[in-house]
Amino acid sequence: MLDLSFLPFCTFLGILGFVSVAFVSAWCQRWRGGFAWDGSAKMFNWHPVLMVTGMVVLYGAAALVYRLPPAWRGPKLPWKVLHGALALAAFVLAVLGLVAVFRFHNDRGTPNMYSLHSWLGLATLLLFSCQWVAGLSSFLLPWAPAWLRALYKPVHVFFGSTILMLSMASCVSGINEKLFFSLKNGTTEYKLLPAEAVFANTLGLLILLFGVLVLGALARPSWKRPDADCPDSRQ
Amino acid sequence: MLDLSFLPFCTFLGILGFVSVAFVSAWCQRWRGGFAWDGSAKMFNWHPVLMVTGMVVLYGAAALVYRLPPAWRGPKLPWKVLHGALALAAFVLAVLGLVAVFRFHNDRGTPNMYSLHSWLGLATLLLFSCQWVAGLSSFLLPWAPAWLRALYKPVHVFFGSTILMLSMASCVSGINEKLFFSLKNGTTEYKLLPAEAVFANTLGLLILLFGVLVLGALARPSWKRPDADCPDSRQ
Repeated sequence: MLDLSFLPFCTFLGILGFVSVAFVSAWCQRWRGGFAWDGSAKMFNWHPVLMVTGMVVLYGAAALVYRLPPAWRGPKLPWKVLHGALALAAFVLAVLGLVAVFRFHNDRGTPNMYSLHSWLGLATLLLFSCQWVAGLSSFLLPWAPAWLRALYKPVHVFFGSTILMLSMASCVSGINEKLFFSLKNGTTEYKLLPAEAVFANTLGLLILLFGVLVLGALARPSWKRPDADCPDSRQ
Repeated sequence: MLDLSFLPFCTFLGILGFVSVAFVSAWCQRWRGGFAWDGSAKMFNWHPVLMVTGMVVLYGAAALVYRLPPAWRGPKLPWKVLHGALALAAFVLAVLGLVAVFRFHNDRGTPNMYSLHSWLGLATLLLFSCQWVAGLSSFLLPWAPAWLRALYKPVHVFFGSTILMLSMASCVSGINEKLFFSLKNGTTEYKLLPAEAVFANTLGLLILLFGVLVLGALARPSWKRPDADCPDSRQ
């Protein structure tokens, strides 16, 4: 493939992640009434912001830690801690995002967990929690034997990409669903493609572009740590 | 990773693909009134069936052709033709699926191309058409020089997986959207989770499982054709 340096790519990805978070925040602030933590529609607005920030942008950053050239040299432990800490931050934001939508539903008497978006989103978060605990137990804590680390590593890598893919599908279905909910009357109907619809549709495409680029970077052989295929050593 | 033979996995994947097509057909037949090619809601029903069959199941089959052990031996040309033919069949079904929804919208005076689902779906199909034409020109027709094939091959592989991911996200957002459209009155509201909602949500999860397993099979090093990383030779 075309020779491409990781750092400029990573800078572009950082900008794209920042723009995605800015877009989802601006959507909720400008068109959906802003933010509060009170069970109202303003509390719901934390849901997309926290999910995009946690399950897409921070998650993507966590996944790419071992692709940073400085992570190729010296001891692996600090990079493992950074990888785990970024993933934990992503997980905490996602749980808060879940609390925001459950509290909003409960305060209005709306049932939870009926749409495909909600099934997929919760399944993704459950998978992520298993992945985090299994990663911590196998790679960071000193208990796991080398053969178990070697066995689990490709599984961890596979589910790492899979969870990001499922997050992207959750975000797209969630944005689509929210726009159908919100834009259904008068001149602002979704099908008339008002400014909000163009803006939030663009947000969906930005999230997909970010996620696809992260997955592409993860799959690129020349950006992998040279010992990536060796059994993981204890720190 | 755990040692796993490709053929039993492939058989399981075939069953899963068949079940996905059966589920989407049964959903449209049992709950959405069946099929016709007359601009009515029955014509719309071809849209999910053709998209799942084409852009997920047949596309997945096309992507996995080179992972079949018989494809590792002997000349590559017959497998290239099979890969291209399956992809073309997938593309034709997807175009028919697009015709079904455009004709349905046009006959009702509903605008086309406003939802994030429609933007993503069309973008996916456009990417797929570019991928197919570029693949044909580079790998099947005898014009492309070896250096161009070698340069383009990883790009083709990357976009191959990306297009399947985008198809999965399109399907999930489309099923979610359709259920919100269809289940909005009386005792069959989506949020009351009637049998149709459980069935179609399950279809969404089946599609994701199928797609994730295809992507996992494509990424698994031991299932790649041994010369996969060599420059592609002319046939």
